[in-house]
Amino acid sequence: MPDTISFARGAPSLDIIDVEGLKEAAARAFTNDAAGATAYGTSVGYVPLRAWIAERHDVDPSQVLVTNGSMQADAFLFDQLVAEGDAVVVERPTYDRTLLSLRGRGADVRMVELEPDGIDVNGLARLLTDGLKPKLAHIIPNFQNPAGYTLSREKRDRLLDLAREHDFVVFEDDPYVALRFSGETLPTMLSLDRDDRVVYASSFSKTVCPGIRVGYLVGSAELIAAIAKRATNTYISPNMVAQAIVHEFCVSGAIDRSIETVKNALSDRVDALSSALSEHLPEARFTPPQGGYFMWVTLPEGADVDAIFSAAQERGVAIVKGTDFLLEGGRNTLRLAYSGVTVDQIDEGIRRLADAVHSVSVEGVPA
Amino acid sequence: MPDTISFARGAPSLDIIDVEGLKEAAARAFTNDAAGATAYGTSVGYVPLRAWIAERHDVDPSQVLVTNGSMQADAFLFDQLVAEGDAVVVERPTYDRTLLSLRGRGADVRMVELEPDGIDVNGLARLLTDGLKPKLAHIIPNFQNPAGYTLSREKRDRLLDLAREHDFVVFEDDPYVALRFSGETLPTMLSLDRDDRVVYASSFSKTVCPGIRVGYLVGSAELIAAIAKRATNTYISPNMVAQAIVHEFCVSGAIDRSIETVKNALSDRVDALSSALSEHLPEARFTPPQGGYFMWVTLPEGADVDAIFSAAQERGVAIVKGTDFLLEGGRNTLRLAYSGVTVDQIDEGIRRLADAVHSVSVEGVPA
Repeated sequence: MPDTISFARGAPSLDIIDVEGLKEAAARAFTNDAAGATAYGTSVGYVPLRAWIAERHDVDPSQVLVTNGSMQADAFLFDQLVAEGDAVVVERPTYDRTLLSLRGRGADVRMVELEPDGIDVNGLARLLTDGLKPKLAHIIPNFQNPAGYTLSREKRDRLLDLAREHDFVVFEDDPYVALRFSGETLPTMLSLDRDDRVVYASSFSKTVCPGIRVGYLVGSAELIAAIAKRATNTYISPNMVAQAIVHEFCVSGAIDRSIETVKNALSDRVDALSSALSEHLPEARFTPPQGGYFMWVTLPEGADVDAIFSAAQERGVAIVKGTDFLLEGGRNTLRLAYSGVTVDQIDEGIRRLADAVHSVSVEGVPA
Repeated sequence: MPDTISFARGAPSLDIIDVEGLKEAAARAFTNDAAGATAYGTSVGYVPLRAWIAERHDVDPSQVLVTNGSMQADAFLFDQLVAEGDAVVVERPTYDRTLLSLRGRGADVRMVELEPDGIDVNGLARLLTDGLKPKLAHIIPNFQNPAGYTLSREKRDRLLDLAREHDFVVFEDDPYVALRFSGETLPTMLSLDRDDRVVYASSFSKTVCPGIRVGYLVGSAELIAAIAKRATNTYISPNMVAQAIVHEFCVSGAIDRSIETVKNALSDRVDALSSALSEHLPEARFTPPQGGYFMWVTLPEGADVDAIFSAAQERGVAIVKGTDFLLEGGRNTLRLAYSGVTVDQIDEGIRRLADAVHSVSVEGVPA
């Protein structure tokens, strides 16, 4: 079997990580603030990075908590706000780890259809009118994982209206926001919010590197203080060395160059992926994303993604089944991550995938 | 008021942290293994560091999980093993964050007296014979926090016998083990254990620096696999950049030099602290520790540590009240951390403390 080409993992290929920039940032972190980088610090995170993030979002530093990756931020937020049996709205499909995390807490997870311009706000409004009282709605507004779709400006406003009318929190989970390579940047719901309805999370995994494990949460000062207490009891403080490195990477401007590198690469990869799909798998339907890591592919009704997954594996190509991001249905869908593959791997990878899809159809599964 | 001299925080002063060594280790981490340091990795931790730890403890790597600091390791372990209402044995006194963490989980916390040679194993045996069925016993065997005491070899063996007879887990919480500056090193209970009764935790906070937030857990492969799953669901993976830096710091030998520096400084500080106490506060009773960060001080019966704490604060010296490490009693005790003070601060700090103690006695509280 040839080396596997992986469209499975939402992680960057090494060629788009600024390793030299990281090495220099690490040296500066120890030189410029040895005391701050090496000490425990407190659970709110490395103070200069916290201030940098606060400035970027035009909020007070007391509204920011810097964590060991944004998954950890999600976990703290869910521990704080979601009790067993609480209704939580998520997009359909949504990030599999969020689904797992909410179900693990015994939440009553309600999926609302995700359309190419974001969650079906009319569908959500109907559920709310019919009596659903969610604690929060989890929304990945930009280049959603797994669909690659982006929430329109109109729907952002509408969601905030619904949150106010029906008294729920919008959890704006936004790790991909900086990675827009086409179309127009939209304001965050955090910036549009006028009454502390939005809690915002993001991460440096996609703009610096995943191994640095630095994410953050923005919310009301009161909520952040409560979560900081929880964080102290869990781990005293997050990684100060890593956060000091990220801070140096940010203030030196290396992060802006890194984002340009990543966006250019992702844009080229989406083009290559779209061409390869059109050529080798013309029956696949997809919306080319305007940023981020992921493309959602819908195959004709009757396609069996379990069989395709195995056939693809045998042919040396890895995908994630759409069913992993859903509570039910979606057997004809799959997610392709193009963040970890170089352009020259994409055509061959999609050839193998097409071969896998067709082999399954030929073997008698309806196509 | 003069600058505060702090005997409060269990953290190293900056002068005993090898900042240059850390900077060099960071550069090597990015040079030697850019892919490993920058990628997500998995929840077991950075694989080369995991292997290094496994070798040090003479266990299989599958028995090791590297975490974001050892408090996070404790939290995972307690989540895994301790349910609401479960009996857990701890030392009296013990680390305040462990008490908080266990009580936060609704554990039935049973304190057993800590003697200068470790937990009162006869007292524990009586409780067990009387029907106590603990899920685990939390033991800090070396230079205990807060007491500075060390568990004798005989008591280590006896604890393992009791654990086998009464079917409980010994949680050997051992962050200070490398910091012995006098007396003879004792074998870990992990190394004496013959039937997977011991779960062991340690940390690089005291040998590298706290801000690096790298700790670890050693246990049966089965337990570690279960906790690794929990860790994946919480944060995907711990900090790979920090763990790669620690790995380079370890394999280069910098860690051994760092430990020498720290031990020499701590030894000098204990001598200075013992002299200062004998001179300025002759009524204080204490056992000079053979390693670690902490000294436990007992004042005459009737001393009021709340009043002393405030009087000390007014005089520019910070301590931690003994009552913080206990569920009840101990109003005449306090903890002095000598890890964060230099030798030349110690005499002045204890002068101020003595003044505070005597001011409170003079004001009419029984001495």
